[in-house]
Amino acid sequence: MIFLGIDPGTALTGFGFVRQSADGSLSAIDYGVIATDANDKMENRLSTLYDELSKKILLHQPQCGAVEKLFFRRNVTTAISVGQARGVILLSFAKAELQLAEFTPMEVKQSVVGYGGADKRQVQQMVKAILNLTALPKPDDAADALALAICCAHSYRYLELTHG
Amino acid sequence: MIFLGIDPGTALTGFGFVRQSADGSLSAIDYGVIATDANDKMENRLSTLYDELSKKILLHQPQCGAVEKLFFRRNVTTAISVGQARGVILLSFAKAELQLAEFTPMEVKQSVVGYGGADKRQVQQMVKAILNLTALPKPDDAADALALAICCAHSYRYLELTHG
Repeated sequence: MIFLGIDPGTALTGFGFVRQSADGSLSAIDYGVIATDANDKMENRLSTLYDELSKKILLHQPQCGAVEKLFFRRNVTTAISVGQARGVILLSFAKAELQLAEFTPMEVKQSVVGYGGADKRQVQQMVKAILNLTALPKPDDAADALALAICCAHSYRYLELTHG
Repeated sequence: MIFLGIDPGTALTGFGFVRQSADGSLSAIDYGVIATDANDKMENRLSTLYDELSKKILLHQPQCGAVEKLFFRRNVTTAISVGQARGVILLSFAKAELQLAEFTPMEVKQSVVGYGGADKRQVQQMVKAILNLTALPKPDDAADALALAICCAHSYRYLELTHG
């Protein structure tokens, strides 16, 4: 089974596809960032993001995809911008009939590190260990996306049981 | 020529299509709201919004579409939610190759009423007068969308000259 994690942004959206083997072990099959040109119009950047993500979903056919629940305390302009990116990401899920799971940052840390107060570096090191990578995944957006995919895999049985 | 105005929201998105005749007069050809089911999953609601709006754009073939520039001072949760709706609206523009114009509330009031400090009721009355409607357009989201379409029509020549 394959799980997707997404870290939304207009300039850079991190993505990570993780495969769960029959023995339960996890491995990264594709991860990185979808980048859009800051000089391009916003509607075209969103279109690029939508198309690139939809292609990836079609290619890997994940069972479930996770996006972080958003809680902004300060910057409302960033909230709108990330909200716009999140909107087309959710649309790509709907169009691919891909099940959406949402997790708070604390839930992701709890699931990946075993401790909800873990810092960014600890999460990245656990992502590397769990996926048996040779180096820390780069950039941060891709590492965050892989952490979400791992959390999604860990939670999938529970989601299936409770959300049908 | 036909102009579109959009007032984005997840529950209700107002839309208004306005035709400019050869003599410069404006008339409403289609307006109302795209409503989504609050009990449905967010990704499906965004998909409904995207599909319904895309159909309307295909049907009326506007030259230019206007969406309000967003400035939230307080509610960040609303900003994310409206941002998500705005994201799929901008995507529908990009996919239809529809030119996007963005206006502040003050610019819309200035264009429709001639006074940037006009209140909601004054804007609605001017929308009614300009479009020669028999009653104030309802609901508010549709009226706001028509005001944006009027502003878009008024600004189109300027936009054409400056943005190519």
